[in-house]
Amino acid sequence: MKMQQLGEFGLIDRIRKMTSVPDPSWVGIGDDCAVIPLSPETGGAPASDLLVSTDMLVEGTHFLMEDISPRQLGWKSAAVNISDIAAMGGKPIATFLSLALPKTLPEQWMQEFMEGYNGISEKYGAALLGGDTTCSPDRICINVTVLGTCPRGKAKLRSAARSGDLVCVTGTLGDSAAGLKLILSGLKGAAPRLMDRHYTPTPRVEEGLALSCLPGVHAMMDISDGVGSDLRHILDESGVGARIDTGKLPISKELQALCSEKGWDPKELALSGGEDYELLFTMDPQETPDIPYTVIGEITANPTVTWEGGSRDYMGYKHF
Amino acid sequence: MKMQQLGEFGLIDRIRKMTSVPDPSWVGIGDDCAVIPLSPETGGAPASDLLVSTDMLVEGTHFLMEDISPRQLGWKSAAVNISDIAAMGGKPIATFLSLALPKTLPEQWMQEFMEGYNGISEKYGAALLGGDTTCSPDRICINVTVLGTCPRGKAKLRSAARSGDLVCVTGTLGDSAAGLKLILSGLKGAAPRLMDRHYTPTPRVEEGLALSCLPGVHAMMDISDGVGSDLRHILDESGVGARIDTGKLPISKELQALCSEKGWDPKELALSGGEDYELLFTMDPQETPDIPYTVIGEITANPTVTWEGGSRDYMGYKHF
Repeated sequence: MKMQQLGEFGLIDRIRKMTSVPDPSWVGIGDDCAVIPLSPETGGAPASDLLVSTDMLVEGTHFLMEDISPRQLGWKSAAVNISDIAAMGGKPIATFLSLALPKTLPEQWMQEFMEGYNGISEKYGAALLGGDTTCSPDRICINVTVLGTCPRGKAKLRSAARSGDLVCVTGTLGDSAAGLKLILSGLKGAAPRLMDRHYTPTPRVEEGLALSCLPGVHAMMDISDGVGSDLRHILDESGVGARIDTGKLPISKELQALCSEKGWDPKELALSGGEDYELLFTMDPQETPDIPYTVIGEITANPTVTWEGGSRDYMGYKHF
Repeated sequence: MKMQQLGEFGLIDRIRKMTSVPDPSWVGIGDDCAVIPLSPETGGAPASDLLVSTDMLVEGTHFLMEDISPRQLGWKSAAVNISDIAAMGGKPIATFLSLALPKTLPEQWMQEFMEGYNGISEKYGAALLGGDTTCSPDRICINVTVLGTCPRGKAKLRSAARSGDLVCVTGTLGDSAAGLKLILSGLKGAAPRLMDRHYTPTPRVEEGLALSCLPGVHAMMDISDGVGSDLRHILDESGVGARIDTGKLPISKELQALCSEKGWDPKELALSGGEDYELLFTMDPQETPDIPYTVIGEITANPTVTWEGGSRDYMGYKHF
């Protein structure tokens, strides 16, 4: 069956059956709006903040149909949004999915897309509570809005970096970019772990929650365009600068091996590749997070950025 | 200047400068997520529910560039979303805007789009708190997510219609459909008021808020696809039927005059035309709302729908 036969409401009905609301007092798919009782009934519960982020993925810009499976695309669409909640130190609670799809798209594509989407959403407790489905003349367009919560006033902002902070990242950098480079070179099967990091990134929700409890952790964001350009957002918002030691960038063994083989520069991939969805954060040198992380530099009062161990002015992905 | 020169962050910066957050404790554009302190600090304030809705508009499906000005498109993108909050009896509080735009689009287009978007958003107190901007290979794609609030448990749902309720609508129906019909016939200037209703619809926020206070008002939704098909959602969700008197459909004088002139059927436009963004609600016959409205029929226990005064099985807009 194709979209044309299934129809809009048939499609919503399918999606609705694949999801559920976490509490009977919530209203999910099937009404004009979802209803989320967020504020506590009594004064006893601690006040919380709502976190909201939204991301759009366009066929031909963010993905090519021949390069990514519908399941991977579904996963990735949710993952990149949930990553924004992780970046604030928040807990995801709900997502809203808008899809513009060509009339001729097979239903199976949609089924698999939703399996990927729901797989990661359920893993992180983010219920699909609504959305919009519509017809596209040609290309697929996907928009996800994610909601999350954190204790009142405790969100980790980009603007909170202080001179003297350490600059830290979770995980390893450049794997996703290397995966993309292999795909674009027609070498899809070459390095499965790097490929996975590109297709099905893991948002750092647990790490973000762990860091959110630490008052010494100041600014935080996720790395979507590459640390080379993403760091600038923290610096600009905080009115500070940084000195980064590119020799300290965490590079995975797989990436190192691949780069040796291909003659690629792992530093360049780590700094400007993007789509790692690791967390970039700054913290007081006295702070000791109980998660794996790597210190790559420090925040300076002088609002410039120095990339030691590399001569390039690394830039991330440019959207226009 | 074109998008290409302005760049993604330049664009965000422009939009940011055109907006503001309603309270210093809120975080708007410029971080990974917007932060909305919704739950009360103390137990004194009444608990509220968060309302969220999202809608996607695709060039070539929902609009043609030659038929709608960027200002009108900006207005309409926000209006159709705010209408979903009105449909629950809620108060809009915030919007999130995703835009996929061709590289070659002039900056002026964007400027005017945002003027239209902000014009209506500000009118209804919905602050633009975030979003996403990205490049589209060709067509424009717009996604808006809107948040609103209402008192805990007081949202007017589609599922609340009861046998014996009156079926009511605000305003007049079919104007927007007639406007579209004129545009498609190349008669854009023919009936300015009908044209306005198509290009710059007014979400019925005040009416929705007034109705939300009345316990005798049961089910409610906004009319986006035409009352002929939209009513079915209320009936399906509530497990009831309806008897509608098509002779009671509220038709504006302008529409009546145009239909006489062109030989069009005003009932058909009113029932299946869509995009009126009026409110469709059911209520106890004893209830007396203090807003203008029209009774068009009643809810029946028998779950079928009868259109008296018309032989057609009216259907609204089909998305696939």
